[in-house]
Amino acid sequence: MHAAISEIKKGRHRPGDTLVVKGWVRTRRDSKSGLSFINLYDGSCFDSLQVVAPEHLGNYRAEVTRLTTGCALVVRGQLVASVGQQQALELLAEEVTVVGWVDDPESYPMSPKRHSIEYLREHAHLRPRTNVIGSVARIRNCISQAIHRFFDQQGFLWVASPIITASDCEGAGQMFRVSTLDLQELPRDEQGRVDFGQDFFGKETFLTVSGQLNAEAYACALSKVYTFGPTFRAENSNTSRHLAEFWMVEPEVAFSDLDDSAQLAEALLKAICRAVLAERVDDLRFLSGYVGEDLLARLDQLAGMDFVHINYTEAVAILAQAPREFEFPVYWGADLSSEHERYLTEEHFKSPVVVKNYPKDIKSFYMKVNDDGTTVAAMDVLAPGIGEIIGGSQREHRLEVLDARMAELGMKPEEYEWYRQLRRYGTVPHAGFGLGLERMVAYVTGLGNVRDAIPFPRTPRNASF
Amino acid sequence: MHAAISEIKKGRHRPGDTLVVKGWVRTRRDSKSGLSFINLYDGSCFDSLQVVAPEHLGNYRAEVTRLTTGCALVVRGQLVASVGQQQALELLAEEVTVVGWVDDPESYPMSPKRHSIEYLREHAHLRPRTNVIGSVARIRNCISQAIHRFFDQQGFLWVASPIITASDCEGAGQMFRVSTLDLQELPRDEQGRVDFGQDFFGKETFLTVSGQLNAEAYACALSKVYTFGPTFRAENSNTSRHLAEFWMVEPEVAFSDLDDSAQLAEALLKAICRAVLAERVDDLRFLSGYVGEDLLARLDQLAGMDFVHINYTEAVAILAQAPREFEFPVYWGADLSSEHERYLTEEHFKSPVVVKNYPKDIKSFYMKVNDDGTTVAAMDVLAPGIGEIIGGSQREHRLEVLDARMAELGMKPEEYEWYRQLRRYGTVPHAGFGLGLERMVAYVTGLGNVRDAIPFPRTPRNASF
Repeated sequence: MHAAISEIKKGRHRPGDTLVVKGWVRTRRDSKSGLSFINLYDGSCFDSLQVVAPEHLGNYRAEVTRLTTGCALVVRGQLVASVGQQQALELLAEEVTVVGWVDDPESYPMSPKRHSIEYLREHAHLRPRTNVIGSVARIRNCISQAIHRFFDQQGFLWVASPIITASDCEGAGQMFRVSTLDLQELPRDEQGRVDFGQDFFGKETFLTVSGQLNAEAYACALSKVYTFGPTFRAENSNTSRHLAEFWMVEPEVAFSDLDDSAQLAEALLKAICRAVLAERVDDLRFLSGYVGEDLLARLDQLAGMDFVHINYTEAVAILAQAPREFEFPVYWGADLSSEHERYLTEEHFKSPVVVKNYPKDIKSFYMKVNDDGTTVAAMDVLAPGIGEIIGGSQREHRLEVLDARMAELGMKPEEYEWYRQLRRYGTVPHAGFGLGLERMVAYVTGLGNVRDAIPFPRTPRNASF
Repeated sequence: MHAAISEIKKGRHRPGDTLVVKGWVRTRRDSKSGLSFINLYDGSCFDSLQVVAPEHLGNYRAEVTRLTTGCALVVRGQLVASVGQQQALELLAEEVTVVGWVDDPESYPMSPKRHSIEYLREHAHLRPRTNVIGSVARIRNCISQAIHRFFDQQGFLWVASPIITASDCEGAGQMFRVSTLDLQELPRDEQGRVDFGQDFFGKETFLTVSGQLNAEAYACALSKVYTFGPTFRAENSNTSRHLAEFWMVEPEVAFSDLDDSAQLAEALLKAICRAVLAERVDDLRFLSGYVGEDLLARLDQLAGMDFVHINYTEAVAILAQAPREFEFPVYWGADLSSEHERYLTEEHFKSPVVVKNYPKDIKSFYMKVNDDGTTVAAMDVLAPGIGEIIGGSQREHRLEVLDARMAELGMKPEEYEWYRQLRRYGTVPHAGFGLGLERMVAYVTGLGNVRDAIPFPRTPRNASF
């Protein structure tokens, strides 16, 4: 019977059981008494299983003693209590079948020595074989499943927002063009401009930067929805916080306001932390050692602490009185920069902070204008050690106010006719936010760089694999 | 206390409870005795809630009697046993707040009359407000959640495969280009060709047609993974089965062969059917009436029946002996067309059929070559009433055979170096398949057209909304 190593580690099998395990060699050690100890890993959990291969196996000399890191094995044997200190149970091999050898072990890119995280990025196809990226993969999965469960249990419907779009949610460039036009022979109109009427969709199209506008259409019909899919920014940013392609979770709730959204965001973040603490202690322990920080304590704290809620105006006042210099000046009307966010969460409040009601002029057209006429019902959720993790807002549901905002910003209402219709027909206050999955994974794993939080990162000048 | 209508319908609240419900008017009927009956819908389930608004409400004349389909309401009232036959409970309103009116009800595109499904497609932003597309949205969510649960419970890790890619999984064009180059002033090299070195990623990039190759890298490290994300085909097909942008689920399992994959596919399809039967009877009942077919019986049958497994060669023999003419000729070496698939599932076997081991020459480079040298370990899962719903294969894990296949097809091994390395280092037999989510949704809902199975369909000349 094939057993996942996670099942063995969880005690689902007993000493005496005959099992088959399948996986890859982490390490091999030969004892003088004629035994080999093989650590076999199958990805189902952080730990590997100790396989004891006695020399009387038919292929002991010819194969077992030649095994190197990365070789693929199928092992049949009996589960026995281990004499070693490292583990409770080990597998006494009755048959070791080598399924795949490692060609030229000396040059195997994932040799057992510790590799730099940058080196691993250059081998994104092999790096899931390492402890660190294996842990990231399991934690990313755990977080993603927790997000789907969280929303499903609360009656949200997962909605697919379109990836290819002709509209620009943020009203600000930096989008990737999607086209099937032959670049060598671009069709042109009479004025010599590219004729997108001949493109696949009959018009100019791009990769989405957010599913929000589409999610609003569904929330204004079905009350509670969320998107969970890839989004794109063609931004030439080489930072630890930016990817050209990243996954975003965007809940949208009808009949709800900014405070409801802030509460939902807090509940979601706590649910994620609790899920990882409940399911991935093995990986968190390893990663804590790897990054030199107690990740379990950090998640415990986030899961247990009430977030501070303040207005942008208060945040600016706090920053203006801060007993330190900032690189970027603080004044009412300026966006908060990373250093400001860190000061608020890590030094002043020592807590996650929800900053609400930002100046209208630094925020998007679709955000609800507050009664003061100068701020909008926007929020950012800032967490210690990471900064902005969630951004959201109540949406402007009053058609006349929306139209005025669009006019102010020089936008063409006819390009947003369908979005305007949501306000013409049974409009309701609604609100939502976006959580960047990779930022969350980078935070939970302690790795801090979104390039390590997604299997195959896309960044400027990099679309390898 | 705000209550979702689904909670009321499930009996979570009792007569006498004071509740707040929030939603949109489906219909309003005024009785001569000075009452209005409002059917209020909030998307949480198929049914709406009957709200009884008595004339002594302050805004009864001014507002309640003016309500039309689509108006947004917040209603506070007491849950009472209904005297009507249609429902057990209704809400006796104490306060009706009109949150959003419908501007010019006569021209409201979602007026209560029955609209054609084609008309609804042209109003994709409003169509989730209809019974039919609301049901589709809930069933699509139910299927998606069931897929995640199915894999999570079996220890699969959800893996994000990249959307933007420089490689072409199927080895066959029809991809969308992704670029930030300025089309008015394309950079060119000395030969006059477009210089993709100056593009965002420093090379030519496209939208993925499948996450499989990337999923293989993760399966060959972590054993059991799946992708669930959007994929793209720039195919000029205007059929009920094709979208330019569609969501695909692609499990990939190390140490597994074609038969394991066929069993996994069967188990997945059955789990999906069972989940929809368990959770969405309301929507299935409505849709059964809408499409004129007993969808519950169809799903019951699929969930309960053992799939027939046959080889391609047997399938061809059966088709050759079929007592009827086919439009496309049947001979060994030809791909099966839709009429052939329907004959096998609907007439010959009257069962879902897994067809295995197709001729090598009609299948992709990465499929495992069988010992006969002429077929590959590929499979299609065909279902009555829909045809191909899943396609999969065991992957070629032997480097020398893979290289020979690539040479045969004129592919450049250096472009697949990372994929080849998976075979150089600890290679293992592995297999997987792809399930098109929209085809599954179109099948389960009985609608039969993938354009109605995704919120905002992208097809040739259509990227609206």
